Amino acid sequence: MQYSEQFIAEKVREAYEEGLKSTSRGTVASYIPELAKSDGSDFGICVMLGSGKLIEFGDTQKRFSIQSISKIISLAVALKLLGDAEVFSGVQMEPSGDSFNSILKLDTASDKPYNPLINAGAIQVTGDLANVVGFDELLGFAREFCRDDEICLNEAVYHSEAATGDRNRAIAYLLKSKGVLRSDPLKTVDLYFRMCSLNVSARSLAGLASLLANRGIDIVSGRRLLDDYHIRVINTLMFTCGLYDGSGEFAVKAGIPAKSGVGGGICAPARAGMGIGTYGPALDARGNSVGGISAICSLSDALGMHMLQ
Amino acid sequence: MQYSEQFIAEKVREAYEEGLKSTSRGTVASYIPELAKSDGSDFGICVMLGSGKLIEFGDTQKRFSIQSISKIISLAVALKLLGDAEVFSGVQMEPSGDSFNSILKLDTASDKPYNPLINAGAIQVTGDLANVVGFDELLGFAREFCRDDEICLNEAVYHSEAATGDRNRAIAYLLKSKGVLRSDPLKTVDLYFRMCSLNVSARSLAGLASLLANRGIDIVSGRRLLDDYHIRVINTLMFTCGLYDGSGEFAVKAGIPAKSGVGGGICAPARAGMGIGTYGPALDARGNSVGGISAICSLSDALGMHMLQ
Amino acid sequence: MQYSEQFIAEKVREAYEEGLKSTSRGTVASYIPELAKSDGSDFGICVMLGSGKLIEFGDTQKRFSIQSISKIISLAVALKLLGDAEVFSGVQMEPSGDSFNSILKLDTASDKPYNPLINAGAIQVTGDLANVVGFDELLGFAREFCRDDEICLNEAVYHSEAATGDRNRAIAYLLKSKGVLRSDPLKTVDLYFRMCSLNVSARSLAGLASLLANRGIDIVSGRRLLDDYHIRVINTLMFTCGLYDGSGEFAVKAGIPAKSGVGGGICAPARAGMGIGTYGPALDARGNSVGGISAICSLSDALGMHMLQ
Amino acid sequence: MQYSEQFIAEKVREAYEEGLKSTSRGTVASYIPELAKSDGSDFGICVMLGSGKLIEFGDTQKRFSIQSISKIISLAVALKLLGDAEVFSGVQMEPSGDSFNSILKLDTASDKPYNPLINAGAIQVTGDLANVVGFDELLGFAREFCRDDEICLNEAVYHSEAATGDRNRAIAYLLKSKGVLRSDPLKTVDLYFRMCSLNVSARSLAGLASLLANRGIDIVSGRRLLDDYHIRVINTLMFTCGLYDGSGEFAVKAGIPAKSGVGGGICAPARAGMGIGTYGPALDARGNSVGGISAICSLSDALGMHMLQ
Repeated sequence: MQYSEQFIAEKVREAYEEGLKSTSRGTVASYIPELAKSDGSDFGICVMLGSGKLIEFGDTQKRFSIQSISKIISLAVALKLLGDAEVFSGVQMEPSGDSFNSILKLDTASDKPYNPLINAGAIQVTGDLANVVGFDELLGFAREFCRDDEICLNEAVYHSEAATGDRNRAIAYLLKSKGVLRSDPLKTVDLYFRMCSLNVSARSLAGLASLLANRGIDIVSGRRLLDDYHIRVINTLMFTCGLYDGSGEFAVKAGIPAKSGVGGGICAPARAGMGIGTYGPALDARGNSVGGISAICSLSDALGMHMLQ
Repeated sequence: MQYSEQFIAEKVREAYEEGLKSTSRGTVASYIPELAKSDGSDFGICVMLGSGKLIEFGDTQKRFSIQSISKIISLAVALKLLGDAEVFSGVQMEPSGDSFNSILKLDTASDKPYNPLINAGAIQVTGDLANVVGFDELLGFAREFCRDDEICLNEAVYHSEAATGDRNRAIAYLLKSKGVLRSDPLKTVDLYFRMCSLNVSARSLAGLASLLANRGIDIVSGRRLLDDYHIRVINTLMFTCGLYDGSGEFAVKAGIPAKSGVGGGICAPARAGMGIGTYGPALDARGNSVGGISAICSLSDALGMHMLQ
Repeated sequence: MQYSEQFIAEKVREAYEEGLKSTSRGTVASYIPELAKSDGSDFGICVMLGSGKLIEFGDTQKRFSIQSISKIISLAVALKLLGDAEVFSGVQMEPSGDSFNSILKLDTASDKPYNPLINAGAIQVTGDLANVVGFDELLGFAREFCRDDEICLNEAVYHSEAATGDRNRAIAYLLKSKGVLRSDPLKTVDLYFRMCSLNVSARSLAGLASLLANRGIDIVSGRRLLDDYHIRVINTLMFTCGLYDGSGEFAVKAGIPAKSGVGGGICAPARAGMGIGTYGPALDARGNSVGGISAICSLSDALGMHMLQ
Repeated sequence: MQYSEQFIAEKVREAYEEGLKSTSRGTVASYIPELAKSDGSDFGICVMLGSGKLIEFGDTQKRFSIQSISKIISLAVALKLLGDAEVFSGVQMEPSGDSFNSILKLDTASDKPYNPLINAGAIQVTGDLANVVGFDELLGFAREFCRDDEICLNEAVYHSEAATGDRNRAIAYLLKSKGVLRSDPLKTVDLYFRMCSLNVSARSLAGLASLLANRGIDIVSGRRLLDDYHIRVINTLMFTCGLYDGSGEFAVKAGIPAKSGVGGGICAPARAGMGIGTYGPALDARGNSVGGISAICSLSDALGMHMLQ
């Protein structure tokens, strides 16, 4: 992929227009009141090039809650602090084919959650983290990984999550009952809710994607924050399970690892060290940002970024 | 990946030794009598380089039944003859997280099979094919895609499949009852059994993998046999669903699309136009060749071939 | 229960009026075209007293297809000819809590169908029968059990069943694949379709119910047609599983064993040797005759016929 | 059923011997440490006749924890205090065909638990109770229904239950998340654990069974404690769902409503106002007392007590 920055910028603008146009096909999340307040017509895309340069259009600095994209951060920290052997002794690496909050497989096919990107798996990983770090340290990692010191807890979202989080509490107790969860269920779920309530922007997600697209190296400081092997784990899980039950179709079309959140964000580490972050709270039926998906598919097509071809 | 052919050949030999050593950890398939006759200590690996050159060690010309790897060929022919819109009107693109012959999701989550690489999905695709081609034409495509004119029907395996294939007949009737299957159930399943009974070698699979690794172009003749978009579909599905319920772990470790068969074969299109075929009938608990998995993981590590990094 | 025949007749008339009135709340079955031709406002109830006397109101001689009530006849013949040990080596006696045509449990919880009154269990029992009798003999048993020599095959319904019966074929092949079904799947399903297509009347069903209410003795001829133990098996299964997923509620309310069919019939053996047959093709959401359920509940209340009180 | 008391006593003795002999085929529960301390060779049977007279053999005054039989008491109190409309607005009346602690159906088939005798349903009923009564009042009802003032909380069992009860906590949170549970999950589960930890004897259970066998009337005092309709509900649910996944088989064989507990008790209201209580902590694979089942089947046979014949 040997394109000039100008050419790439042009394609990002086209992708932005594609994404913006598509927002009318989605609806904002309503499962917690705070999310329902979003403006479905918002859209922004930020691309951090391998050179560190940012190309961005639209609402890239607007803050929104990270939601499920925090699963990537928690997994990364867990791999860093505990190692993959420890982490994957409590969770598998397989796509589940079920919806994000399913407990079906957990109770019929396997005691260990299918992967760290469904709720059960993320709660399991958060439980392991809860035994070694507190929320403040996790917040520190989030800021460092995203290159964004202004990430903070959105209190309103956090309280909304906590007030409506009984299904996640059920999952935590179920994992505990199976001897898989190694921490206190209610404390674990509280930490999980806090992580879902971090306030990020499309630009923060581009920073996170850049880290994942550059083998764990912060390309601005040159510091290695994550190991090669951890990046392989994370990117592969994003590729196979990152967009809930729309993961397979997106993988076929865009061919780029990506993780979405119902807050409207998508984080996608692409070829040539390019990190993509999008924000568009209008979601499709599977809970993925329609603008983000359209824009990333468009960009992948335009720049030939499908990774398996 | 700018390695000399000599360096690559050395790494393939090491991978071969790794694979051969690991065969003792597996057991040959026993679900049909014909497969149980295989020699579990057999192992071979064949790599077709981007230059067309073959590097091979061990049992690379020994014939065995292609089994599930035929799903790739059927899918490719269906995409070529019917187009992706038609094919994917009857089957999804999502990993299922269930075992290869599961009907659970089919009856609870969705009428359309999750993807063309589980039995239900492959039967659906075969049904579409049965309406437009016969077995002889499919055999012709198999020979062309694999660059191997000696591929033929293994009659003994075919009769063994037909005699024990009632679960697949159940799947076909279930698809028919849901209005998804567009062909006669028993005729479809018969064609499916024939395709599973093709006699191939590790070298045939390297040929097929080469085609998939080179965007659908037969690198020897220079002819395009499959479209770019079809390759993206096939490679992505192999990446997310190619190794049954071991797909996720292999994707994390090797990062290469691959499809296995319980006959002992694996077909894996890798970076730099490299097509890998392996044969090792000793299988792990999930039905994948232990030798093949070990060898491909070893080669991926040695040559840095993980595609998502 | 020491009521005069006159008092009982009065209560049956009230039950008839209750049933007739309720038919407007249901709709006729539409899953096969032949059933859709029924008149939803039809209703009839026939009660055969312990004395052999018939009390009947409404459409009690109108013919309709027996559908699932044939499962009772097939089970009775199988118990008579093969014995309970043989029959229950292939099917369980447990309520399933799933819908009548479910295959979920069959594929996850147990190879043996849960009971002979769901489709899978009835197909299993029919398979055992198919090995020892032909349709003509079964028809003979049906006529004898129902005290109705005019029962015959409704050809139009039979062809309709056969044309739309792929789900039942799937079930038969699934049972075969598990080594449970001991007969040819397609032949078995054909016999099953024929048995579902018998033309009966409310009066025929009252005859059958009378046999079950009198410990297997035909109260007119005094001949024993079924053993005590077989009656216990049949009546208990009707009580726990006879009305699909409405069985539990009906058991609580009416407290009488009963088997319904989507043709609109219900057969209910009650206290004091009283056999109840109803016909009302308007069905509720679970596939049970609304008129029949209303009438039998009303009668049970009026005469204190709840068996568990 | 017109037998002399002497004849009945003889048959009860034979049933006792049958039950005692069979205890060697079972094993005591081990899922909580306290239960594992039971002596598997213990066995006792107590029958309260319609006259109020007690016939008993073996360990009928030994105390053990009531476990799931408390579900009957909680249901009875809920029906009495809240009425059946309120109770069954949160739980169904259908057999589930799943094991006692299943959550599968809860998450796939229906938000409302299948019936009040599986854990999910009992937790739901306990939740409704928790809003109107405390444990002390429930204990009072238990003593009254069982005619046993010495019933009290077994503290050791209660603590054991609470320490290992995470699956039940998961169920309570799941019900809460679906908007079905109308009380605090942790408080509800605590009350549920207390009710499971009541110390009863075979004689207490005979008292409870007597109440259910006599239409809700305490035959000693002549006082009505429960309504007719509530008895019908309770007895029917015991008949269809009282012995976990062994309910169907027991219903066929014995034909008597019964509820078992993993503490080793069975409570069975039979014909002619006869209440049966048994104690035998050696359990079969489904969690039912082998001695109790053997003895009750034997007695049903000897006295012709099958209710559906």
